[in-house]
Amino acid sequence: MASGPNIVTFLSDYGLEDEFVGVCHGVMLRIAPQLTIVDVHHNILRQDIRHGAVVLEQAVGFLPEAVHLAVVDPSVGSGRRAIVISTSSGAMLVGPDNGLLLPAAERLGGIQAANELTNEDYLLTPISNTFQGRDVFAPASAHLAMGAQPSEFGPSVEPSSLVVLEIADAWIHEDHVHAEVLQVDRFGNLQLNLHRDLLDKVALSEGALEVRMEGRRLNVVQGTTFSTVASGEFVVVEDSYGYLSLAINNGDAAATLRARAGSTAIIGPATR
Amino acid sequence: MASGPNIVTFLSDYGLEDEFVGVCHGVMLRIAPQLTIVDVHHNILRQDIRHGAVVLEQAVGFLPEAVHLAVVDPSVGSGRRAIVISTSSGAMLVGPDNGLLLPAAERLGGIQAANELTNEDYLLTPISNTFQGRDVFAPASAHLAMGAQPSEFGPSVEPSSLVVLEIADAWIHEDHVHAEVLQVDRFGNLQLNLHRDLLDKVALSEGALEVRMEGRRLNVVQGTTFSTVASGEFVVVEDSYGYLSLAINNGDAAATLRARAGSTAIIGPATR
Amino acid sequence: MASGPNIVTFLSDYGLEDEFVGVCHGVMLRIAPQLTIVDVHHNILRQDIRHGAVVLEQAVGFLPEAVHLAVVDPSVGSGRRAIVISTSSGAMLVGPDNGLLLPAAERLGGIQAANELTNEDYLLTPISNTFQGRDVFAPASAHLAMGAQPSEFGPSVEPSSLVVLEIADAWIHEDHVHAEVLQVDRFGNLQLNLHRDLLDKVALSEGALEVRMEGRRLNVVQGTTFSTVASGEFVVVEDSYGYLSLAINNGDAAATLRARAGSTAIIGPATR
Repeated sequence: MASGPNIVTFLSDYGLEDEFVGVCHGVMLRIAPQLTIVDVHHNILRQDIRHGAVVLEQAVGFLPEAVHLAVVDPSVGSGRRAIVISTSSGAMLVGPDNGLLLPAAERLGGIQAANELTNEDYLLTPISNTFQGRDVFAPASAHLAMGAQPSEFGPSVEPSSLVVLEIADAWIHEDHVHAEVLQVDRFGNLQLNLHRDLLDKVALSEGALEVRMEGRRLNVVQGTTFSTVASGEFVVVEDSYGYLSLAINNGDAAATLRARAGSTAIIGPATR
Repeated sequence: MASGPNIVTFLSDYGLEDEFVGVCHGVMLRIAPQLTIVDVHHNILRQDIRHGAVVLEQAVGFLPEAVHLAVVDPSVGSGRRAIVISTSSGAMLVGPDNGLLLPAAERLGGIQAANELTNEDYLLTPISNTFQGRDVFAPASAHLAMGAQPSEFGPSVEPSSLVVLEIADAWIHEDHVHAEVLQVDRFGNLQLNLHRDLLDKVALSEGALEVRMEGRRLNVVQGTTFSTVASGEFVVVEDSYGYLSLAINNGDAAATLRARAGSTAIIGPATR
Repeated sequence: MASGPNIVTFLSDYGLEDEFVGVCHGVMLRIAPQLTIVDVHHNILRQDIRHGAVVLEQAVGFLPEAVHLAVVDPSVGSGRRAIVISTSSGAMLVGPDNGLLLPAAERLGGIQAANELTNEDYLLTPISNTFQGRDVFAPASAHLAMGAQPSEFGPSVEPSSLVVLEIADAWIHEDHVHAEVLQVDRFGNLQLNLHRDLLDKVALSEGALEVRMEGRRLNVVQGTTFSTVASGEFVVVEDSYGYLSLAINNGDAAATLRARAGSTAIIGPATR
């Protein structure tokens, strides 16, 4: 008998204010009562595919081999494809074909195959136009986690036909770097789309920086941890995913700067 | 040996800001370490029995056969009865006797029997006056999920003696429908207590509607999905539970109209 | 083969807005796929060790025998020790050495032994400076839950060397009690650091009280439950953990008084 990973991880923009997440759990457990479900994140910014893609890509490296179910789906009901991607690592990704899954697929070794989810034997019918997490993605994920093969779910999809989402990298202009906030965490730390090796090309790795952001011009120390600086001061640290992050020790950089995902930062050596 | 469904689903107004939900999980796992617990919804509006009843009734059809534990209990400690309802589908419902459980019981095939929860062998004593989710409902649910029989928990309750909660249906007056918002989801979509067949009696099923709500008079298209209309426009769609819902494509109807559960809508054909 | 409790309970100030909690679940399930994880509370006030300690101490009595993982860690990355405490009850506590774990350890029968978490065989390396829940505490907890022995994780720690956090008790001055809000729940009830036996020394147990708080002077009835008083009125009740709590029946005392954790209350008999 076929056997699957028996674990589904679940990321969405459904929030926890509604029954959406709980109902998807219910649908999966009706199909697979022994399934383990890991809620990775359900507070992706509403309908923000890019935010979902960034978080999923960073998280998958720390998750068990699983079916990774992800739903950020502003075009639900409009005919975008529902897909499962099989990756070289053995993990699978299930969600809408809107770019959400691709960065994670790369992180998981690249796309080995992709299939549409159209076989109604594995879906809840009638399929609603507004809640396909419940009717399409959750039931398909549960069946895949139990060992059903992706090829049973629908026609093969050419990987090059999958929708790609542009996620900008930081870039250098003259003596400074143009970066962007990827996401903000609960503590107000601003994760930038910037790794140390790029910043090192314009600034000494222990030197002070000038950061221009949201109309402010800040002198910021580079640190190895938040407490490199005094309480209340700005610091740039390498975060736990290897990105540089702009933070305030014991404070909230996002609130202080009124910054959010997508805010731009121009970073160079401190001028004095 | 008796064997139960081994699954408890859990709905409450406890929120996730406190330890309430986690402690109830702990209490259940002390009794039944192999139990699967599904968190359906913990953000029922505070002490709003009607909101809880509406959500529970819609969710149970998608949940596995289980003990459905539900706690919205403004009269905790005042002598209202604690009950378990056995339904014809085999599922059980556990919670306060205040009307919360009855719509779900109907959806699950109707009430077969009901018992009070008074046997202290199955409860945590001393029973507090303020947190009976922990002391009464959670331990009873865990024992029921393991196979204990409802008749062991306390005296039989005459179904006709259970507290009934009034939940209004939409109704027709002349050429328009009076409806009410049942609930608002994270995206600001307004679920109405209205099914298509009733609306069809006053308006063509593809025609434009006039919706009067919160002092506004809106011309609204009926669609099959949000994207039937342009981004930012109002649309009435059938939602995933078969109710009609007033939404804004890629927008937030609740915030735009300052509407909430209980807001009334008067809906008829567009006058021009 | 060694066998552990196979359950981890998890309390933190990570919130549920980020992937922090989900990633820690993932890390634990990679190590121990059969592990049961109980989320006790993830909305501890940011970096508020005292709040975490108070909640953890109250919760553990209702949790199964487990590895209790707790992370409120404002000094992450600065060299504070990471520890596991073995208690006389058999339960273990894992977290930073900053006082967070000690009240719970007392509640669990007292400290039997403590060890540092330094053995990289049980941690994720390289250990980040900012997310040691993921890299240190979660993996250590999963290994302990599977039966690894605390002594394998690192050097023994002298219990008297553990960091102690001051948590004030209420105290009597002349004819009144000085108390403090320990925590506020979702309903706005104010849990005080005060038990009935102390209050009984200054006020009759059924008499009216005068409570001075946040600049207000309130006449408050003592009740056995919220509904001892009319809707909208203040009441002091013994809460489900045995603390006295200032509440408004069907209302929100915290919002009404603008009170929060740490607010002080001066309580004595009503003067007229």
